[in-house]
Amino acid sequence: MRIAIDAMGGDDAPKVVVEGALQAAKEWNDVEIILVGDSVAIEACMTERPANITIQHTTEVIGADDEPVKAVRRKKDSSMVVAGRLVREKKADAMISAGNTGALMTTGLLIVGRIAGIERPALVYIIPTMDGSGVLALDLGANMDATAEHLLQYAIMGSIYRSKVDGIVKPRVALLNVGTEAQKGNELTKTAYPLLEQAPIHFIGNIESRDVLNAQCDVIVCDGFAGNIMLKSLEGAVSALFSTLKQEFTKTLFTKLAAAVLKPGLKAFRKKMDYTEHGAAPLLGIDGLVLKSHGSSNATAIKNAVRQARIAIQSDLVGAISTEISRGK
Amino acid sequence: MRIAIDAMGGDDAPKVVVEGALQAAKEWNDVEIILVGDSVAIEACMTERPANITIQHTTEVIGADDEPVKAVRRKKDSSMVVAGRLVREKKADAMISAGNTGALMTTGLLIVGRIAGIERPALVYIIPTMDGSGVLALDLGANMDATAEHLLQYAIMGSIYRSKVDGIVKPRVALLNVGTEAQKGNELTKTAYPLLEQAPIHFIGNIESRDVLNAQCDVIVCDGFAGNIMLKSLEGAVSALFSTLKQEFTKTLFTKLAAAVLKPGLKAFRKKMDYTEHGAAPLLGIDGLVLKSHGSSNATAIKNAVRQARIAIQSDLVGAISTEISRGK
Repeated sequence: MRIAIDAMGGDDAPKVVVEGALQAAKEWNDVEIILVGDSVAIEACMTERPANITIQHTTEVIGADDEPVKAVRRKKDSSMVVAGRLVREKKADAMISAGNTGALMTTGLLIVGRIAGIERPALVYIIPTMDGSGVLALDLGANMDATAEHLLQYAIMGSIYRSKVDGIVKPRVALLNVGTEAQKGNELTKTAYPLLEQAPIHFIGNIESRDVLNAQCDVIVCDGFAGNIMLKSLEGAVSALFSTLKQEFTKTLFTKLAAAVLKPGLKAFRKKMDYTEHGAAPLLGIDGLVLKSHGSSNATAIKNAVRQARIAIQSDLVGAISTEISRGK
Repeated sequence: MRIAIDAMGGDDAPKVVVEGALQAAKEWNDVEIILVGDSVAIEACMTERPANITIQHTTEVIGADDEPVKAVRRKKDSSMVVAGRLVREKKADAMISAGNTGALMTTGLLIVGRIAGIERPALVYIIPTMDGSGVLALDLGANMDATAEHLLQYAIMGSIYRSKVDGIVKPRVALLNVGTEAQKGNELTKTAYPLLEQAPIHFIGNIESRDVLNAQCDVIVCDGFAGNIMLKSLEGAVSALFSTLKQEFTKTLFTKLAAAVLKPGLKAFRKKMDYTEHGAAPLLGIDGLVLKSHGSSNATAIKNAVRQARIAIQSDLVGAISTEISRGK
């Protein structure tokens, strides 16, 4: 299988991206990696030359601050757009990028294209949960004004992803809402609820955002606006709490000593709660595999994204979504 | 000034409600308190008989699980509905209840009534922030499908509340959104943004939910659905983190000793972050003062609600909102 990696995307590109690609190439010899980007810069980072890595030279880069649609339209020879084109032309089975999220969504939509029947692709994250299992949430911002039909498609795509990529036999799908009763919510969730009840998924009803971290489900469905509010609220609360802990820990000599004892456990916990650590985020609904790694990804995160892509390719994730969506039409 | 208190609402009613009323009556002799509820049960809790407390006997109680609209319509002699009627008939300047939130919103709407020109009243909370100042957020669930005009009215009401009740000279009002740029968001926030720019408030633009706890504004405006998702996400994250801390603390003898040193600071912090501790929640847009105390309120919380009501009455909060809204029409 062939995986195209945008070597120029991310805070520490191309260095960590190339490092991650080298690690992945060594680990899985059934994977051929195509590093897309400035060949001189990439060559400079190549400490080894494994046979299953090739370089596709490009002359442009989409920056973190570039306006997504403009950038994708104009920078036709950017590493991200070229990687997308490889997927569309079936020269690659998947692409991975740690670059500009908006531009990657646009690349997915405009360059790779949607699965027939999918109205809106969704941006997905695995939100870390207290037990370490994580819950897949979608949409988290690809589409701000969703309809009930969009939510239904998100639910089907999320359920297939959890089953195919994470091996969960009967993923529990829940609808993000303001209460657990069926009749709760806004017009959107009230209309979506009966659709979800009839969908080919294991729908377990509404979930409130206060229960997300307790892992009571495997997939959370929401519109991009509410999902983004939820994700950033959780993120903000975790970050605020840790900065307070830091203050408490450095107050006196005694608290400093106490902190030294507790730090290892807390550090591990902080890492567990960091959603950027939880692998790459797939763009679901695109007619090809597009994975977004966090901008601050290290080499291990890039290697893990290759692992995810590999499983998704082996299990024919995109084909399974396409089949299920066309069956519902 | 006369303040009606629903003596039968809340987890520990009427005991803690009566205790709180007694404390308030002692502290402010310009306040006349009307305890509304079962006179026998109330009398049994009255350890003193201050001159500025009277009892208004009622025979019914709205329970925590009662269906709000039905309960308010049918239980005409319930303590909550009778307190609302006292406000409508100008026999009380304010009412306070720690009872069923939905029923209290319904009492506000159906018994007390809306301010002329207000389309939807809003449920308000002070979300605790890291610096202790708190940010007033509305709407947090009174109205699930808001229009841009509703958000505009929330902004005006929230700004007046912060200025009148909390003495903030020029309250900073922000719009809850998925990014800080003006053009970000869903149809609702994109339509509301220019309205807020032209409103008689100090509008500072969008705020992301990850920054709410950093107190970058005094008022956050949002629709009831998104607001509820934000509030419960913050609440869920704080609660999940503290249960993890508890686990870390009790792992070994060393961590237990370390925890003992850190506990006082963390306990104070936990209290600071508990939004139920931050006074009563006003229902804004009602033509009379209606305050919701948390169901688990203790006597101090009830006394503090009287303090809030007293300031709001003195500053003519409801009159100020009414004047500003009619000016905009």
